[in-house]
Amino acid sequence: MSEKPVIVLVDPQLGENIGMCARAMLNCGLTEMRIVRPRDGWPNQKARDASSGALEVIDGATLHDTVNDAIADLTRVYATTARKREMVETLFTPRGAAADIRAYASEGGHHRCGVLFGGERSGLTTEDVALADSIIRVPLNPDFSSLNLAQAVLLIGYEWFTAETEVAEKTLDIGEGRPATHHEVDILIERLGRGLDEGGFFRSPDMRPVVMRNIRNMYQRSGLTDQDIRTLHGIVESLRRAGPEKK
Amino acid sequence: MSEKPVIVLVDPQLGENIGMCARAMLNCGLTEMRIVRPRDGWPNQKARDASSGALEVIDGATLHDTVNDAIADLTRVYATTARKREMVETLFTPRGAAADIRAYASEGGHHRCGVLFGGERSGLTTEDVALADSIIRVPLNPDFSSLNLAQAVLLIGYEWFTAETEVAEKTLDIGEGRPATHHEVDILIERLGRGLDEGGFFRSPDMRPVVMRNIRNMYQRSGLTDQDIRTLHGIVESLRRAGPEKK
Repeated sequence: MSEKPVIVLVDPQLGENIGMCARAMLNCGLTEMRIVRPRDGWPNQKARDASSGALEVIDGATLHDTVNDAIADLTRVYATTARKREMVETLFTPRGAAADIRAYASEGGHHRCGVLFGGERSGLTTEDVALADSIIRVPLNPDFSSLNLAQAVLLIGYEWFTAETEVAEKTLDIGEGRPATHHEVDILIERLGRGLDEGGFFRSPDMRPVVMRNIRNMYQRSGLTDQDIRTLHGIVESLRRAGPEKK
Repeated sequence: MSEKPVIVLVDPQLGENIGMCARAMLNCGLTEMRIVRPRDGWPNQKARDASSGALEVIDGATLHDTVNDAIADLTRVYATTARKREMVETLFTPRGAAADIRAYASEGGHHRCGVLFGGERSGLTTEDVALADSIIRVPLNPDFSSLNLAQAVLLIGYEWFTAETEVAEKTLDIGEGRPATHHEVDILIERLGRGLDEGGFFRSPDMRPVVMRNIRNMYQRSGLTDQDIRTLHGIVESLRRAGPEKK
């Protein structure tokens, strides 16, 4: 299994930009691109032309309908964003993220990282960001911080490429377990959501997406393992079986 | 006199690329661009359009007939090149050059640095490189190391910018919230434990202490806030109110 992070482009618009991302990736030794809902379809000749010969990236790219699908097999996902979000998230610089990816990949064979990049118009949605385990924000001129898509990919790739594998100052020892996949988290969160619906958790239906996003975020921050997922399923089942609390 | 390095584009071809360089410069807080022999003339509307609003860079750019003229007032000049040169030159990585520029600028008011970038087709000539005091080579995939012009400018600018700001590589942004106290976690875990007891979660009573410790650990790892605690109380209450799942 590859130690290299997967690059996930979400809602990219121009084929030229996808091509330039492929070029930037290969500049940095990255080869696995996944594309979610490219506006102008796929395959795309303009992407090939703009890749300056990075065809192994272009031809190997996979197409996905949803971010969830694109990251289903990944165990740690970073979202790149320039905007402040009203969420509790671990926030990395590109350099910090590169060190984190290197250290994480060195921990075990089931670990697989990916980095999400939003489209040219408006970047990642808050929902996309919520699917990630942590955020990467590039420290730039605060008065002019919007990066071109390929530029953002380049900076992350460059930091990854130049980062030496170093001993992480802080790691999570997960013993015999393995990290939960995003798909496993999806299934858990859906089951929990059904319970909350039936238990009248949401006073207003409008609030449901935001609250569910925050709940998901809270769990993801803890670096869930497969065992944690089983435990949480057991908790949902048992609490429901217990019935209402006595007053 | 500015401490910021001047960016010198030598024989650039496409206006779009000059515009993207301006954008990359301003992303990194750099504002002074000098252009030597732009193929398509100057001013250039395509450069303005591609700059994404970095007009202070575009409009302030100066035009030069020779590299010598463009760097006449500078006291230290770096040349960026991907190719090996048959010259004895001090060789920097972008990070090393950034530190060098910072240190040099702090030495005195007459010090002024600039960085040369070659055109899209073939980069800097050997003569151009020879005018520089030292070379910057970006460490990249040796099998695919040719960077787009604006990408090269970005990497140099990014290293210069981040060398100054010393941003923490990893932080947890908890927004308006505050971290939960251990007492708050205790109360939550006790309430959860009662629900698990009543729902028959623990097959064997012997296992309870270990399992509860693991559950507590899972929650604590995520860095709970006061809001998270309130949410988790609501989840316990709602799941119990929902009653058993339909099979």
